[in-house]
Amino acid sequence: MTRMAVLGCGRIGRMHAANIAQHPKASLAAVYDLHEPSAQDVASAQDVPAVASPQEIFGDAEVDAVLIATATETHADYIEMAVAAGKPVLCEKPIDLSLARVNRCAEAIKGSSVPIQIGFNRRFDPGHRAARDAMRAGDIGALHQVVITSRDPELPPRSYLEAAGGLLRDMTIHDFDLARFMLDDEPAEVFAVAGALIDPQLGAELDDVDTAMIILRTADGKQCHINNSRTAVYGYDQRVELLGTKGMLQSGNRRPHALRRFSTVATEAAEPLLYFFIERYREAFMAEVAAFVDAIENGRPPEVGFEDGRRALILAEAAYRSLAEKRSVRVDEIG
Amino acid sequence: MTRMAVLGCGRIGRMHAANIAQHPKASLAAVYDLHEPSAQDVASAQDVPAVASPQEIFGDAEVDAVLIATATETHADYIEMAVAAGKPVLCEKPIDLSLARVNRCAEAIKGSSVPIQIGFNRRFDPGHRAARDAMRAGDIGALHQVVITSRDPELPPRSYLEAAGGLLRDMTIHDFDLARFMLDDEPAEVFAVAGALIDPQLGAELDDVDTAMIILRTADGKQCHINNSRTAVYGYDQRVELLGTKGMLQSGNRRPHALRRFSTVATEAAEPLLYFFIERYREAFMAEVAAFVDAIENGRPPEVGFEDGRRALILAEAAYRSLAEKRSVRVDEIG
Amino acid sequence: MTRMAVLGCGRIGRMHAANIAQHPKASLAAVYDLHEPSAQDVASAQDVPAVASPQEIFGDAEVDAVLIATATETHADYIEMAVAAGKPVLCEKPIDLSLARVNRCAEAIKGSSVPIQIGFNRRFDPGHRAARDAMRAGDIGALHQVVITSRDPELPPRSYLEAAGGLLRDMTIHDFDLARFMLDDEPAEVFAVAGALIDPQLGAELDDVDTAMIILRTADGKQCHINNSRTAVYGYDQRVELLGTKGMLQSGNRRPHALRRFSTVATEAAEPLLYFFIERYREAFMAEVAAFVDAIENGRPPEVGFEDGRRALILAEAAYRSLAEKRSVRVDEIG
Amino acid sequence: MTRMAVLGCGRIGRMHAANIAQHPKASLAAVYDLHEPSAQDVASAQDVPAVASPQEIFGDAEVDAVLIATATETHADYIEMAVAAGKPVLCEKPIDLSLARVNRCAEAIKGSSVPIQIGFNRRFDPGHRAARDAMRAGDIGALHQVVITSRDPELPPRSYLEAAGGLLRDMTIHDFDLARFMLDDEPAEVFAVAGALIDPQLGAELDDVDTAMIILRTADGKQCHINNSRTAVYGYDQRVELLGTKGMLQSGNRRPHALRRFSTVATEAAEPLLYFFIERYREAFMAEVAAFVDAIENGRPPEVGFEDGRRALILAEAAYRSLAEKRSVRVDEIG
Repeated sequence: MTRMAVLGCGRIGRMHAANIAQHPKASLAAVYDLHEPSAQDVASAQDVPAVASPQEIFGDAEVDAVLIATATETHADYIEMAVAAGKPVLCEKPIDLSLARVNRCAEAIKGSSVPIQIGFNRRFDPGHRAARDAMRAGDIGALHQVVITSRDPELPPRSYLEAAGGLLRDMTIHDFDLARFMLDDEPAEVFAVAGALIDPQLGAELDDVDTAMIILRTADGKQCHINNSRTAVYGYDQRVELLGTKGMLQSGNRRPHALRRFSTVATEAAEPLLYFFIERYREAFMAEVAAFVDAIENGRPPEVGFEDGRRALILAEAAYRSLAEKRSVRVDEIG
Repeated sequence: MTRMAVLGCGRIGRMHAANIAQHPKASLAAVYDLHEPSAQDVASAQDVPAVASPQEIFGDAEVDAVLIATATETHADYIEMAVAAGKPVLCEKPIDLSLARVNRCAEAIKGSSVPIQIGFNRRFDPGHRAARDAMRAGDIGALHQVVITSRDPELPPRSYLEAAGGLLRDMTIHDFDLARFMLDDEPAEVFAVAGALIDPQLGAELDDVDTAMIILRTADGKQCHINNSRTAVYGYDQRVELLGTKGMLQSGNRRPHALRRFSTVATEAAEPLLYFFIERYREAFMAEVAAFVDAIENGRPPEVGFEDGRRALILAEAAYRSLAEKRSVRVDEIG
Repeated sequence: MTRMAVLGCGRIGRMHAANIAQHPKASLAAVYDLHEPSAQDVASAQDVPAVASPQEIFGDAEVDAVLIATATETHADYIEMAVAAGKPVLCEKPIDLSLARVNRCAEAIKGSSVPIQIGFNRRFDPGHRAARDAMRAGDIGALHQVVITSRDPELPPRSYLEAAGGLLRDMTIHDFDLARFMLDDEPAEVFAVAGALIDPQLGAELDDVDTAMIILRTADGKQCHINNSRTAVYGYDQRVELLGTKGMLQSGNRRPHALRRFSTVATEAAEPLLYFFIERYREAFMAEVAAFVDAIENGRPPEVGFEDGRRALILAEAAYRSLAEKRSVRVDEIG
Repeated sequence: MTRMAVLGCGRIGRMHAANIAQHPKASLAAVYDLHEPSAQDVASAQDVPAVASPQEIFGDAEVDAVLIATATETHADYIEMAVAAGKPVLCEKPIDLSLARVNRCAEAIKGSSVPIQIGFNRRFDPGHRAARDAMRAGDIGALHQVVITSRDPELPPRSYLEAAGGLLRDMTIHDFDLARFMLDDEPAEVFAVAGALIDPQLGAELDDVDTAMIILRTADGKQCHINNSRTAVYGYDQRVELLGTKGMLQSGNRRPHALRRFSTVATEAAEPLLYFFIERYREAFMAEVAAFVDAIENGRPPEVGFEDGRRALILAEAAYRSLAEKRSVRVDEIG
């Protein structure tokens, strides 16, 4: 039984706390949030103590591992503290919005064998994973193209966007990681186009974008397209397509149930897609915790580690440079 | 080149005339209709003569074969005349509404080798045929159940219904034939339930029904369900499902194109189904003529012959007796 | 918080115990099984006591309600004991294989206000329920036809079949209830055809069948078809279709994820269906417990009660008589 | 009745000849091919004369319009000759592989009112057109993204590729036109990535590519992704997706029929896609001729004219420059 503490009791931390509590091989030991009522709320729902500081958690011998779901700017500090305390870490993405800070963190933890897993939950989605497994099993021959469609249901509030670090570091970063997972290889070049099409104020006021198209290429020429939008009114649109010499695989969207409607104007009309990540990636979030616990218990490195978090951020940086310079950017110009 | 004449220039005769004219191995020789303007209309559209009587066609040495698409009560007479004239016949279903008349016709043409094909077009639908071919090839192992869904888009006008002979002889007769085709065997028992649910006046005034469910069983126990409705507002609903020990096959509906719509209320919403038989079974009607021409040119009996028309009518009679007596009726009680 | 005890720790009791334990408003108080190791197993997994007799549960003031998942022949006894003890009951279907016993049980509990819910889980399936809700909201106008496809993935072991009471009482009973739920009305007539097509020995040795087709009709003429098979190699096939004057609704099958494969021989090939009821109806089983708890807490009668269990059994009896007499059987001949 | 002559009797010319012959308002007047047996073959199949030279056609008063389906390098010459002769032209794409030659042709025909239609058949596909119509009708609000998937079933023979002018001018040119059609606007910037992944020899020997990803952007920021492959073993993959502020539209693939297979390993497995353009775009090719005839008869300019052919080629040139310079190329750098 791995006793886990959760730092950060916002929407996603609350979900992780519940998932940990339900996991047969994990238990929830304690929770923390800078905003005490949030911590109290999760603590009482899960019947565990809410502690007053992260230090209490890092210093607690009864805590075997930590899950970090606090504000992004604290991630690197807490990773360093957890590693210093010898506590395995499952940290929400991104590691930090600054590549320099991520690199310093990497330096700080160099040589440590404390397991670190980054919360790229989509790798654990049953459909996406089955697609990759089939590809690696040779079902579609040699892989040539990957197409990732990733559209959020709704533009988040301005307050969120002000702290999020920009579309490519906040939202696309999941797709950059998924691209690496699906390509089973490193992108060598990045090209990006983006705009504030949904909310032009976003560009004017935050220098942010809400709609993007990206092309990645690996050293041996495999191609990957990512397309992003902050608004898909029909639901959270999450698809992956893999084209190979012997076939194609598509990991598709999910709906709450399988009702189809037939009328004078439409046939086979299905429900809107599951609204957002907590619903769509429910199994993935649970599998992510399971994989973390499994890695710790079996002394194996987590499947998706610190360096994966760093590489995704490097791709985001390359994409930003591409936006600025309107050219394909070699990833080694950044990393 | 098989020179064909078409008797009957209503909606379906007009379609057959055009199909014959387009067929690479057939040509349209002449057309006839009791209602001369209809004949003239098709004649001028296809640039062929409209003749004044069926006799002209049966006596014309330049006519190799005839397609009968006249009113049902003339079918048996014309079949007998065609056979007497030695002209192969492709006759629309049903042969007659009266089994006694069909039996007399069978007697009249006994011993003749003139090819007769009945217009059970659905046997030639690419999807339905592919389902049956796959079943006969063993893809689903031993066949256990057949489910036929067959719903017209709209109740026909009262004038049509008055002459149609009742739902089971007019509409279900296609499904009875399709059941025999898919079962690859003879139904031995029939049970039927029906009602005038769409238009209760239909029951009161015409003693007809518009909605039915039927179960057929073969001697060795294979089961078949047919469900019929005269109104499916979402389009002409034509499906066949085959369940076997090793799998299932479904031959599904057709739409004019493959557009899918996604909105706040629905996803993957497709177009309404193709409206009715001329659109839905376009390829089937063309393949039916092709099979007829092919049978004639190669001296082979047509795939679906006079006896198939008779057997479908016997099933309709058995179903009517089942309706009346609320019991399973053995087919040999009728035939 | 409703404290529930589970009687019967077989496959389905074990699942219910876990569902109760996870429910935010319920807690698992104790478990019991005649076979002690089974009870111990669930007890230790859920960290609750295993008690030595049902009486301990019925007499325990700390138990607010019971879930009965024991062998069918004990259901009626335990219902009577629970009612006598004033404990609300959620009882797995069927109430009993004997209608006489069910009627005696009804007599025994007459006048009691202790809530009884029968485990017709399918009513709580999100897709099936959404279909019925849409129908009741008028989305498809007046309902005319219901088609229920219900096929198990695999023939159960002989030992199970020997005790199950026959296909129509064991398996179809779910579909009879679902038919009543979807028709929103009482079937007045039943016709059934069935055979031992998968395993002919089943007929010879157990006088049982494995493949069936049934037609129900309500007093006002609505039609319902049920088709059953004990073997669908492609997975647990659970579909409901509702045809009305303004449209059609289909509640379809479920798969573990949304991967589709494209190759030289097939396109859009999806995964096999979820294997069986525990996977396919996972949400339904959880919603069933939630509805039970909700009914108790709010003093409302459960949505699906004792009489629903009795009516489904009556339909099974009518269907058996129809099989024997090859005729449509009026339900009031039985009930 | 528009009397049309067909120049070029290869695969596509033969198809056009048959489509013209079947069109109710057009007739086939004559055919020509440099390779006389090809011309004779089509001539005898359609029962029209095969003429010995293009000049015979351009000088024939009985010919109202011409369809050019000869080798690409002759297109511009024949367009000029047709315009000089006052004969409306339906010319297969591309106008020429050289933008300079296209520009000279534009100069040569400047001021002429002879209708010229370019064979961008996909604009006439019922599904693609319905998508665009729905978009223009406001069904999805403001358009933000277009995704075009366009993959041929199989690498063409080397001889074809040697003359084809490269992937982007030969194959992608259709997608460039479709992008303009769907965006309902001009792309202002082009970025392309491509490689010889299917057949590396193609790169080494012909300096050609077989797999590409492209991003287009309009002046107001709308984004379009095209992805191409010369080999999709599951069939000719032709999809268009439009994302807007109020919804999404997808125009999907086509299959020969609607059979779906269910087995132990797959469910809903559909047939491979229609093999290639003649089958997939059958209705589109017929609608293209119909639109041309309609434009001539009603004195309207064709929907897709010479300038559309030129603009698609400019996009191909811009894409080639992008490939070479690994940067986004402004379209006005080319045109």
